[in-house]
Amino acid sequence: MDPIVTIVAILVLAKAFGELLERIGYPPMIGEIGAGIILGPGILGLVTLNDTLEIFSTIGVIALLFISGVEMNPKAFAAARNAAAVTAAAGVIVPFATGFAGGRLLGFTFIEQLFLATVLSITSIGVAVRTLIDLRRLNTLVGTTIVGAAVVDDIIGIVLLGILSSIALTGGVEAATLATTIALSLFFIAFAFTGGKRLVSWIFVRSRRMKTHEMPYAVAIIIALATAAAAHALGLHYAVGAFIAGLILGPRIRNDRSLFDGILDFGFGFFVTFFFASIGLLFVPAPATLISPLVALLFVLAIASKTAGGYLGSIHYLGDHLRAITVGFGISARGEIALVVAQTSLAAGIITRSIYSAVVVMVIATILLAPLLMKWGFRVHEKREEPATGGRPSAGTR
Amino acid sequence: MDPIVTIVAILVLAKAFGELLERIGYPPMIGEIGAGIILGPGILGLVTLNDTLEIFSTIGVIALLFISGVEMNPKAFAAARNAAAVTAAAGVIVPFATGFAGGRLLGFTFIEQLFLATVLSITSIGVAVRTLIDLRRLNTLVGTTIVGAAVVDDIIGIVLLGILSSIALTGGVEAATLATTIALSLFFIAFAFTGGKRLVSWIFVRSRRMKTHEMPYAVAIIIALATAAAAHALGLHYAVGAFIAGLILGPRIRNDRSLFDGILDFGFGFFVTFFFASIGLLFVPAPATLISPLVALLFVLAIASKTAGGYLGSIHYLGDHLRAITVGFGISARGEIALVVAQTSLAAGIITRSIYSAVVVMVIATILLAPLLMKWGFRVHEKREEPATGGRPSAGTR
Repeated sequence: MDPIVTIVAILVLAKAFGELLERIGYPPMIGEIGAGIILGPGILGLVTLNDTLEIFSTIGVIALLFISGVEMNPKAFAAARNAAAVTAAAGVIVPFATGFAGGRLLGFTFIEQLFLATVLSITSIGVAVRTLIDLRRLNTLVGTTIVGAAVVDDIIGIVLLGILSSIALTGGVEAATLATTIALSLFFIAFAFTGGKRLVSWIFVRSRRMKTHEMPYAVAIIIALATAAAAHALGLHYAVGAFIAGLILGPRIRNDRSLFDGILDFGFGFFVTFFFASIGLLFVPAPATLISPLVALLFVLAIASKTAGGYLGSIHYLGDHLRAITVGFGISARGEIALVVAQTSLAAGIITRSIYSAVVVMVIATILLAPLLMKWGFRVHEKREEPATGGRPSAGTR
Repeated sequence: MDPIVTIVAILVLAKAFGELLERIGYPPMIGEIGAGIILGPGILGLVTLNDTLEIFSTIGVIALLFISGVEMNPKAFAAARNAAAVTAAAGVIVPFATGFAGGRLLGFTFIEQLFLATVLSITSIGVAVRTLIDLRRLNTLVGTTIVGAAVVDDIIGIVLLGILSSIALTGGVEAATLATTIALSLFFIAFAFTGGKRLVSWIFVRSRRMKTHEMPYAVAIIIALATAAAAHALGLHYAVGAFIAGLILGPRIRNDRSLFDGILDFGFGFFVTFFFASIGLLFVPAPATLISPLVALLFVLAIASKTAGGYLGSIHYLGDHLRAITVGFGISARGEIALVVAQTSLAAGIITRSIYSAVVVMVIATILLAPLLMKWGFRVHEKREEPATGGRPSAGTR
């Protein structure tokens, strides 16, 4: 198929389904994932995830996290810092322990237990952020806690991944390698908010004085992509770098409505769609897998463990049970990192095909359920509260 | 290299060189091509033209022609219709005859003569349009004549390509196949301006009533890509379909400044850059080729024949020697189609490697010279005229 036709098919179906879902009150993201499932090898078999679609998808998640960084109120984010760190920690420890123990009950081998524990521990930043933007709750206390926890979670996740692949390959863990990974990640973040911030601001301010009309737009995209690539080179996910770039450039971009609209269009009107459609393309639903007790058990463990972890981590800071549970819902979706871990583990012979399939179905199911749980949590909570202390729905910019 | 790093490297170097060229008074496009040459296999060898970059480049030329269709004043374009058709015809016949005769003088075989004639006949729509947009002369009489001639030229070029490949493969031409190609092209254009126009307008108007905020932007891009893919499926270049889609949607998009700005950013701030950088990536300068007498001869024949053809075709309609010569300059750049013809002909064993290399250098040289000749033509002409009858510099929107 002509690659342009593939791109058109994905855009048309994803946008149509997204619109449909939005009209009946569900997050449009679910429609975009559904478009991927239908076009993908599981159903119509018209589209497979090739290099180009993977790059579109990567640019999509970079654009998504960059935009959420730009939209995020830095003061609100700084205020949620402690809540986010503790929530991330609890939101990893509980699912990790659950996965390890659950694997034992299921008769998994040690390395399979470790795999399950890792897969259950890593939140999908993309799904969490997109849902908050769609629900216009990004800049609420719950929203900033969720995003912060998802970002910190990614850093912990990278360490877990390192342990998993090290044990799988060599049977043991090299402390020096792990320490290097952690040190590089922390160095990246420390540099981003000091020298990196000054450098990026200097470049961006100069881009406005150029003769090329589209220069600020191009430079904003270049900064987002470059920071994401730098994060990736150090072992973090592209999304973490893009989010930090958005936070840094936020004040300069938010005030330029025309530029920000252009970047929103670049993301939500084009690239972001490919990120969610790609998640659907990875999904090959086999009826036997869909109804297996293993899937049902994993799914319940996945949702329950992150919700419990998120609740335990945030209740001290938020002081409200329903809000804390909503934070837990917000970090429940597992995403592309879990799918990649599952694929590499299958390829490395760490896990069986049936465990792989069950994990893929579990991941997609959490992506489909988490936004609905979040929506429910915000709605019930805001109904109970005085309007003045509600979810600040005006904070979302879209 | 991480594909995101490749994308960043191309964007940074192309935008920097584009800005530099613009500041010293040359078309930024030349800087973008130069960035491709430097990053490409000829010099640094950091980037090669892979599938993904080719798709970026294709979306770039689609965006470029879509934008030029949107910017084009339909009445001005309709007024230039006859001038464009005759210019296209003369602008193909003269270079074709020149190529055929020139090949004979050079001792080429019959099929090599036919190859040279074909390569000299096909104007680069992308280069012509980009130069007119950069010079803000798209909606002048000269500008509309150039664009119209380049579009019609592509249709004639497709027929020539069919003849060339048919003779190369089978030793003869099948009249039925050629007639089908021509009939399909004409049918596509006729349908585009009747049923296609109604369908596309219906869809676009409805996109504004959707709940999804970015829907008009996404739908405009979908229509551009889909029309381009339809043209390509019928044997035309993507660019022809994209230009027609732009003409059809023009009135609806031009009046929505925010939407049009978003699409300009999508094109000139991102994808179009990859189209021109890709031209540079195809160029591997070998010192021996650069200074060969064959290259020099081909280059002179290429510029002289298209300029003469363009002049002869348009002088009757424009009534002014300098304007008619500027039209000739405007259709002098050969582009990606000529490069593709050269590659497929080399692969098919129709031409020798030395002819191939000479043609590639000739194509790049016309791309570099034509914009400078056009700029000179517009400037001298406008200096001579009263300001009121000048080039309507406000017509360009950028």
